[in-house]
Amino acid sequence: MDIGAINALSYEEFLNVLGNVVEKCPIITAAVWSERPFSNLDALEAAIDNFIDALPESGQEGILRCHPDLAGKELRSGTLTPESRREQGHAGLDRLDAAEASGIGRLNAEYKARFGFPFVVCVRTSDKRSVPRQLEERLRRGRAEERARAIAEVKKICRTRLRSLVRGDQVNKL
Amino acid sequence: MDIGAINALSYEEFLNVLGNVVEKCPIITAAVWSERPFSNLDALEAAIDNFIDALPESGQEGILRCHPDLAGKELRSGTLTPESRREQGHAGLDRLDAAEASGIGRLNAEYKARFGFPFVVCVRTSDKRSVPRQLEERLRRGRAEERARAIAEVKKICRTRLRSLVRGDQVNKL
Repeated sequence: MDIGAINALSYEEFLNVLGNVVEKCPIITAAVWSERPFSNLDALEAAIDNFIDALPESGQEGILRCHPDLAGKELRSGTLTPESRREQGHAGLDRLDAAEASGIGRLNAEYKARFGFPFVVCVRTSDKRSVPRQLEERLRRGRAEERARAIAEVKKICRTRLRSLVRGDQVNKL
Repeated sequence: MDIGAINALSYEEFLNVLGNVVEKCPIITAAVWSERPFSNLDALEAAIDNFIDALPESGQEGILRCHPDLAGKELRSGTLTPESRREQGHAGLDRLDAAEASGIGRLNAEYKARFGFPFVVCVRTSDKRSVPRQLEERLRRGRAEERARAIAEVKKICRTRLRSLVRGDQVNKL
């Protein structure tokens, strides 16, 4: 599907195709539909990024709280969204041994207790060894800095999801 | 569950209980968790209303676009959220005869073509006879006026859902 086909979709079709490019936040996809037509995929990405940037801090934290834990209970119970399932599987988070799983579980709990939102990272560019390392490093940051970093990861995840769904002219950009 | 118990919930529990008080917009519930503790249920409602009011027009239209049609394909295919299923059933929209169904279907299509979002009404205070009447009346309005009216209905729906969860028959399931 190219950008011309995307621009021709009704809001219902647009949501069916792109509703989960920001995890469990179809409102964002549904909002940017108002701004079509998009001249290219970058313009659609920019519209989503701008919408996120314009949200109050609580709204940005709300986006983060809609994300599942990495290697968490939704993965174990099979209730991840298909997109998260693929991404966590790609990073090997569905094939952890007991020690790896409990290590990440402990760091996730510590992170959530500290910040009040889950650890979000674009796992397309991570693997099961780098995740606990990144968790430890990001646990040391301040809340505002970490919120900004996590939102940057949300945008990266969005970009990879969009590019897997929409054919662009710069597919290798990420 | 009273407001004290609500205030004590982790963001994950808060989302599990209240994540769909605005249809398919858990980001809103997740955002207002930042503002706890709430002195009472009215304060929680006000936090949600204020979050919605602060969104840009596109974001408010995004909320509307996350709503299903009344008596639409999600009702027929059994894919409504449990909350919407109960509400549409309460209004008798799951028991329409062929003429009633095609009448509402035609009006829904006309409404969506005109406004770019679906007809949203708090069906707790409607029934299958008043829905087509309200659709016809609201179809005549301007876009800004109708957006505001639809968002007022979203808030009414949110209020009924909140009150059934915090005080109603679901309390004992938690």
